[in-house]
Amino acid sequence: MMITGVKALVFDVFGTVVDWRTSIIQECTKLGEAKGIEADWGLFADGWRGKYGPFMNKVRQGELPWTNVDALHRMALEELLIEYDINGLSKSDKAELTLAWHRLQPWPDSVPGLARLKQHFIIATLSNGNVALLTNMAKNAGLPWDTVLSAELAKAYKPDPEVYEMATSLLGLRPEQVMMVAAHQGDLRAAQQVGLRTAFVLRPLEHGPDNVPDLTPDPSFDLVIRDLGELAGEMIAQIHSKDG
Amino acid sequence: MMITGVKALVFDVFGTVVDWRTSIIQECTKLGEAKGIEADWGLFADGWRGKYGPFMNKVRQGELPWTNVDALHRMALEELLIEYDINGLSKSDKAELTLAWHRLQPWPDSVPGLARLKQHFIIATLSNGNVALLTNMAKNAGLPWDTVLSAELAKAYKPDPEVYEMATSLLGLRPEQVMMVAAHQGDLRAAQQVGLRTAFVLRPLEHGPDNVPDLTPDPSFDLVIRDLGELAGEMIAQIHSKDG
Repeated sequence: MMITGVKALVFDVFGTVVDWRTSIIQECTKLGEAKGIEADWGLFADGWRGKYGPFMNKVRQGELPWTNVDALHRMALEELLIEYDINGLSKSDKAELTLAWHRLQPWPDSVPGLARLKQHFIIATLSNGNVALLTNMAKNAGLPWDTVLSAELAKAYKPDPEVYEMATSLLGLRPEQVMMVAAHQGDLRAAQQVGLRTAFVLRPLEHGPDNVPDLTPDPSFDLVIRDLGELAGEMIAQIHSKDG
Repeated sequence: MMITGVKALVFDVFGTVVDWRTSIIQECTKLGEAKGIEADWGLFADGWRGKYGPFMNKVRQGELPWTNVDALHRMALEELLIEYDINGLSKSDKAELTLAWHRLQPWPDSVPGLARLKQHFIIATLSNGNVALLTNMAKNAGLPWDTVLSAELAKAYKPDPEVYEMATSLLGLRPEQVMMVAAHQGDLRAAQQVGLRTAFVLRPLEHGPDNVPDLTPDPSFDLVIRDLGELAGEMIAQIHSKDG
């Protein structure tokens, strides 16, 4: 498929660029060992992530005032610790554990894929994560963003259209000049509604080897790729075929 | 002077990081030659820059609704072309010339100084320039920002306090953990009012060799440095003296 005129690629981050589950399990396991707490940290990580959508919906529906993801992660953690009957964590332990989301590790293809794309396109986050989280994560993981764009700047959460509109407006581009890259079809369909191009990244292991989601892609997406290396290859080939 | 606990440095850009005057003169000269227009492009550049503050004040005072710097640069250019009686530019010439502000060249010390700082600190813009302008400039000039912060995100212009407050809030830091770096003392004094640390960069040639401003620094600034290399040296020495 020919995709011409794309100037910027904006990326969902949790699951698309970084492997949140493995990273969170590792940090929880380490803290559990230090504090003598035992739990199924895989289930715990899934539970923490599982509360993310519902907490954002509380903001979306006005049940909570604008609250950034750091604060939502912390509120979700408090609920989860009660559910798991874990009492041995101090206030500072909980603050530090919440920052585990700032230290998520990238999928192996992310840094080299982004570095290749950066030579030809503007690359930016477009995540529900807050600016500090995304900036610290990029620094820690070596993600070479040109800039960090976040739902926090629109005070709205994806898939609300304001978030995608904010991104195109701040980049000074028309929607069709911006491609949304995500491992989640709902995110891409919402971006499409606003006029962005779409690339669906297959991340079968996002939720662990026992929970592979249905990855049958919506046929309306502009690209379906296995990883960010393949995305770089496809997008750079488009430039060359246009020049040729 | 000991400055401990700084996590992020935020930079004024026009004049502090990039040499707007030389870049604008070059772009105007080139366009003038192509179109057969003669003018004193040094004075023209100074005139364009001179309208920047007054146009931002129109926004600040509510005479204009929120308008980003790309649009203000364009409005200022229209005024200036009338003043210089220059009629030979098409609409697309004027649009393209306005984008000269996206292509400003860095002072020679900027890229290496920022690269050293980036190894130890978060580095971000904190400019009145809009996000697209700053992002395109960074890409063109190789400025290695961790993220782009702009007055556009606060819908207020420096030196209004909201701009500095927005930066510390989005970075998730306390004001004293953020250092404002600027070649303009008014910018630094405003940052200081909000609680930020301050570094004054001496840029005697910002307005050209014939217009060296009074650079006697306010004694309340935390650092006075000749360039971003010296800034990197000072800030990295602070970390080591703290560790030692």
